[in-house]
Amino acid sequence: MRFLDLILKKRDGESLSAEEISFIIQEYNKENIPDYQMSALLMAIFFQGLNNKETSAFTAALAESGEVLDFSSLGKIVADKHSSGGVGDKVTLVLAPLVAAAEVPVAKISGRGLGFTGGTIDKLESIPGFSANLTIKRFSELVSQNNLAIMAQTDRLTPAEGKLYALRDVTGTIENISLIAASIMSKKIAAGAGAILLDVKTGRGAFMQSKEKAFHLAETMVRIGKEMGKRVVSVVTDMSQPLGFAVGNILEVKEALSVLKGEGPQEVEQLCLFLGGLILALVGKVRDPEEGQEELARLLKSGVALEKFKQMVAFQGGKLEYLENTDLFPKASYIEPIKAPKSGYLREIDALRVGRVAVLLGAGRSVKGEKIDPSVGVLLTHKVGDSVEEGEILAFLHGNKEDTLSASVKELTNAFLIVDERVEPPPLIHGVVPPFPS
Amino acid sequence: MRFLDLILKKRDGESLSAEEISFIIQEYNKENIPDYQMSALLMAIFFQGLNNKETSAFTAALAESGEVLDFSSLGKIVADKHSSGGVGDKVTLVLAPLVAAAEVPVAKISGRGLGFTGGTIDKLESIPGFSANLTIKRFSELVSQNNLAIMAQTDRLTPAEGKLYALRDVTGTIENISLIAASIMSKKIAAGAGAILLDVKTGRGAFMQSKEKAFHLAETMVRIGKEMGKRVVSVVTDMSQPLGFAVGNILEVKEALSVLKGEGPQEVEQLCLFLGGLILALVGKVRDPEEGQEELARLLKSGVALEKFKQMVAFQGGKLEYLENTDLFPKASYIEPIKAPKSGYLREIDALRVGRVAVLLGAGRSVKGEKIDPSVGVLLTHKVGDSVEEGEILAFLHGNKEDTLSASVKELTNAFLIVDERVEPPPLIHGVVPPFPS
Repeated sequence: MRFLDLILKKRDGESLSAEEISFIIQEYNKENIPDYQMSALLMAIFFQGLNNKETSAFTAALAESGEVLDFSSLGKIVADKHSSGGVGDKVTLVLAPLVAAAEVPVAKISGRGLGFTGGTIDKLESIPGFSANLTIKRFSELVSQNNLAIMAQTDRLTPAEGKLYALRDVTGTIENISLIAASIMSKKIAAGAGAILLDVKTGRGAFMQSKEKAFHLAETMVRIGKEMGKRVVSVVTDMSQPLGFAVGNILEVKEALSVLKGEGPQEVEQLCLFLGGLILALVGKVRDPEEGQEELARLLKSGVALEKFKQMVAFQGGKLEYLENTDLFPKASYIEPIKAPKSGYLREIDALRVGRVAVLLGAGRSVKGEKIDPSVGVLLTHKVGDSVEEGEILAFLHGNKEDTLSASVKELTNAFLIVDERVEPPPLIHGVVPPFPS
Repeated sequence: MRFLDLILKKRDGESLSAEEISFIIQEYNKENIPDYQMSALLMAIFFQGLNNKETSAFTAALAESGEVLDFSSLGKIVADKHSSGGVGDKVTLVLAPLVAAAEVPVAKISGRGLGFTGGTIDKLESIPGFSANLTIKRFSELVSQNNLAIMAQTDRLTPAEGKLYALRDVTGTIENISLIAASIMSKKIAAGAGAILLDVKTGRGAFMQSKEKAFHLAETMVRIGKEMGKRVVSVVTDMSQPLGFAVGNILEVKEALSVLKGEGPQEVEQLCLFLGGLILALVGKVRDPEEGQEELARLLKSGVALEKFKQMVAFQGGKLEYLENTDLFPKASYIEPIKAPKSGYLREIDALRVGRVAVLLGAGRSVKGEKIDPSVGVLLTHKVGDSVEEGEILAFLHGNKEDTLSASVKELTNAFLIVDERVEPPPLIHGVVPPFPS
């Protein structure tokens, strides 16, 4: 097989066989294919697309490029969850212990944040002592013993995906649904869970800004997962405004704790119960998602989910006193209020702008490997649909760097749009793929 | 300027500014842009194309990446000629001395052959002693003193074009009219001639197999040249069958000599007179191409063109005795006749197959840098439209390697198509762009 011939084949609109795709990924992983040929192929894929068979083959090849975890010895279906990334998305912090509290094992491998979306690992590691750098062995042990572990990505799983993503990132070949789906699903397949919930965010603060593309991605990932023998459900959820009120690592951990204590915010709790209900139904723990939601609501109310979260933190080295008394967490050196320039109704809280402010403050990374500041971020006081008075505080900016203060204030102020007419809040959930039960 | 942003811009269908294109080429030439980003951009260009302004900017940037020759001190318009490549295309060997004989300086920089098309330099270097490896200084001197020099490509001119072409060659990004036109024209611009004749071949033995694409390339190159202040004319000529009877280096030198002696083949003489007439009109030496043709016919008949050729060969180190007595040239060790399997009319002599046979025999290169065998090739005895009898010889295969003989015979036999109905020979010239005078 000549790699150039495969580039020409795809460039000219033909489809690649599973053998050809496997050859491409294996040889690229072995560094037998130069980056300049791979990037040409990726750009050809950007324009010509991958059909269903090709996308599944691509996913399988990426998944098989490294170790593939296997939890079959547990005798229970292990659950996993993925979010396509959003602003203020602390769902995993609540959902994972919640589902584990229902004795459904949760094995979650997560990335660090990059760009305007935060990363679960960064949030958890803002708890002093917490470590997500587990070995695969320790990860599997914790899943088996405690029904819950959250580990940072490792090169031992899907190494080809990591290399390929890095190349796509610098060659303008990220934004292709097939490649995005294959990339995400390969990691889920390799992580070994039998049931996968995919939370595809849509709106200004999501990678899939259009609802249409979000549903396309959701459907593509569900199809791939099913072809690979997984139980999969995908939910398209709103990311036009940030989720909840907190954006920034410690601020979000505090908000998640509040939800686990049954103290809201309401929308975060509601979303976590909805997603959790789907997972419980998916693994067969309950007859339908509604029954799952009811069970999870009880586990939340009784404090079992909070206990599960504390157990996980303790098992992974985090200091529990911070969870008992959140005042111990470091605080930002200044807190700057953002005020409403006029009275009216909040029509928009641009999640993308809020996410950018968080990066500007140091809560996120603009380049890989950058150190982040756990204490900074944005705390909203209102959500879209709320009525506000002129001069009322819309948000607080938590910052440590004086030099980014004025730019952050300006960007955050521009995130809000106040109108005279009453505004309906956006729906939290846009749809479930496939509609349950499928 | 971030290179990634330029990739995204082109990928998403926007056009690049002249400054952006200049940045791209300059930085790539300085090796500040990695090949993997450049190949992604090239593939995006393959799909999105370059508009007229972009194509001209691309050409200018490539031309300016190295030295640009300047013949203005000669006080005469210098002519140059380019062929898009064909099988049996010995036009330069006749046309260059013919035009120089009319006291129009010809400065021709030429490439070596690659693939099924031969290269002018290879043909000339099959004359023992002849060297095309001139310095730029010596090349300019010869043009000035003798009105004629033919030099092999050098890295000092359009180095970015060379690097880019090598990358395109291995990334499936050759076949784009804008990139092809920019590549060719940048070399012509850098070579310094004021008048450029472009011979765009079309048919089975040409890169532009379709006439439509050939005209598109011709028009694109003429437009670029004019925008850069050059006098340019483009001719789309036939390459469905090989040009003349000879294919292979020494065989073609002998045929070119025969034309220069006024002994034909008729079609090669006719094409050279036609193209030469256009050049003479282009530089203003004559009022119209017909007058140019008449003058050149006289120079051919009187032997002045042949003398010019000999002068050039002598100036560039070639041994004249080989031209005086062509029997001195080395000969192939075997000559194998190909016979007509049936009687009828020759409908097709597939130039691509004949070109491939030539490569198989060693007359051409399948990879860059390969040594070629000057004595081998194919000598046709008939042309399309001729009537043939069963068993009559259609061609002779001149070979040295026993191991490729049977494959060569098979491929060459398959190049001929004999039909029962009378066949019209194809036109030699498909059109002139722009129709002269423009």
